[in-house]
Amino acid sequence: MQFSVYIPPIVNPDEKLPALYWLSGLTCTDENFSAKAGAQRVAAELGIMLIMPDTSPRGDHIPDAADAAYDLGLGAGFYINATQEPWHDHYQMYDYIVDELPALINKEFKVKAKSAIAGHSMGGHGALTIALSNMKQYCSVSAFAPIVNPSDCQWGQKAFSNYLGDKQRDWEAYDSCALMRQQGKFLHIPMLVDQGLDDNFYHTQKLTKPLEDVALEIGYEAEFRYHVGYDHSYFFVASFIEEHLRFHAKHL
Amino acid sequence: MQFSVYIPPIVNPDEKLPALYWLSGLTCTDENFSAKAGAQRVAAELGIMLIMPDTSPRGDHIPDAADAAYDLGLGAGFYINATQEPWHDHYQMYDYIVDELPALINKEFKVKAKSAIAGHSMGGHGALTIALSNMKQYCSVSAFAPIVNPSDCQWGQKAFSNYLGDKQRDWEAYDSCALMRQQGKFLHIPMLVDQGLDDNFYHTQKLTKPLEDVALEIGYEAEFRYHVGYDHSYFFVASFIEEHLRFHAKHL
Repeated sequence: MQFSVYIPPIVNPDEKLPALYWLSGLTCTDENFSAKAGAQRVAAELGIMLIMPDTSPRGDHIPDAADAAYDLGLGAGFYINATQEPWHDHYQMYDYIVDELPALINKEFKVKAKSAIAGHSMGGHGALTIALSNMKQYCSVSAFAPIVNPSDCQWGQKAFSNYLGDKQRDWEAYDSCALMRQQGKFLHIPMLVDQGLDDNFYHTQKLTKPLEDVALEIGYEAEFRYHVGYDHSYFFVASFIEEHLRFHAKHL
Repeated sequence: MQFSVYIPPIVNPDEKLPALYWLSGLTCTDENFSAKAGAQRVAAELGIMLIMPDTSPRGDHIPDAADAAYDLGLGAGFYINATQEPWHDHYQMYDYIVDELPALINKEFKVKAKSAIAGHSMGGHGALTIALSNMKQYCSVSAFAPIVNPSDCQWGQKAFSNYLGDKQRDWEAYDSCALMRQQGKFLHIPMLVDQGLDDNFYHTQKLTKPLEDVALEIGYEAEFRYHVGYDHSYFFVASFIEEHLRFHAKHL
C-alpha cells in the first residue's frame, strides 16, 4: 500500500505532531489530495502532519470490477472490510485505515495519540463512518460532499452488495446515518461537513443532507454548510480545506 | 491553442475584470496551474480573472525535438517567436501571448486594458521578458524560480540556438537581464520574484539571482525573495501564489 505524508516544519523535535488522515474519493490515489487541494501551505502554518492513503488495494493480483467500473474495485475500496468473494482477501480498507496504517505511522513518526480524519465524497463517507465508530481514536472529523447513507444511494448499494453481500443489516456498520443514530446518543465527536449546491451528485447520490437530518433529529451538534455554485471537484476541496484544517487544529 | 480561464464571481457585470496571465513552465499544459496552484480561492476573493495558456503549439503536425526532449519543442515554447527551421511556422508563442490571445480574450470577455502577468520557471522567463518588453500593456509582473538569463544557462542555450539560431545578439530580445538593462532605465513595472533555495535548478540554470544583480546595479526597484526549504515544484507555487495575487491586485 502506497501513501503520501506531508510533514510540517518541525519546531520542537520532542513534541508529538498532530496528524490528520485524509481519505480521498472514487478513482483517486494517494496523490490527488497532495497535488490538488493546496493543503500543505496551511498545514505548514498550523504544524499539522497530513497522511494521505490510497483508496483501495493495488496491483495486478488485486480483483477489480469485471468492466473496470470506476465505482467498484480498484480506486473504490469504500473504507470497509469486504466479506464476499472475490474481494475479502484484499479489500480490508477499514482495518487498514483504523489499525494498520496508524500502527506504521506511530512506528515511523512521533504523532499524537488522537488524530483528526477528513475526506471527500467516498472518502467523506470513510472519514465519517470511521470517526463515528472510533470516537476515542479521533479528535474531530470533517467531510466534503460525503456519501452519508450508502444503503440508500446507487454508489453505496452497488459497492456494499458486492463487498458485503445482500443482507442490508450488515451494511449499517458502514452507514454514517445509522452510526450517528447508534453512537451519537452516547458519545460526540466534533464534525464539520461542506456541500456544494452545484454538485451533480448531491441529489443523485443523496450526499450530506440525510446525515444533517439525523443530526437534527437526535440533537447531535455538528456544522453542515451548503455552498452555492460549488461542484463535486477538487476545486471545491481546495476552496475550503483551509477552514477544515483550522477546525481540526482547534481539536488536535 | 487550448487555454484555461477562471472567471471570478461577477459582482458588477458592467465593470471590466482585472485579469492575470499565468505562464507555466517546461512540460506543462494549460492544466497544471489550474489544478495544482490553488489560485482560484484567492482569485475569487480578489475578483481576478485567471488566463492560463499552454506552453507551446500542440498537435501531430507540430515539430517536436528529435528525441522528444522535455526542454525543446512540445511543452517548451519559451514564449518566443522562433526564426529557424523547423520551428518558425508554429512556434510563435511571443505573438500568441502578447497579441493573439489577448485579442481573443478582449473579444470574449470584459477585461481591463492593462493585465498582470506571472509565471513559473520557463513561464517566469516568459512573464518577465514579455512584461519588460511591453511595459504599457502590463501593470505588474511576478515570477517563481524564473530563468532570467537564458543566454547563460543550459535550458536557454539549447532552446535559443534551436529556435533563434546561433547569433547570441538575437537572443537578447528574450533575455530578462538584457531587457532590464535596456528598458528598465526608462520605464518601470512593479515586479515580485520568489525563489526556493532547495530548488535543484537554482544554481544549475542560474535562476533569479542574475536578474537581482542587474536590478541592484541599475537601481530597478523590484522585490526578490529567497525561501529556505522550497524546491522547484508546484508545491512552491501553491505556497506563495496568494501573496502574488495580492501583489498584482494592488496594481490591477
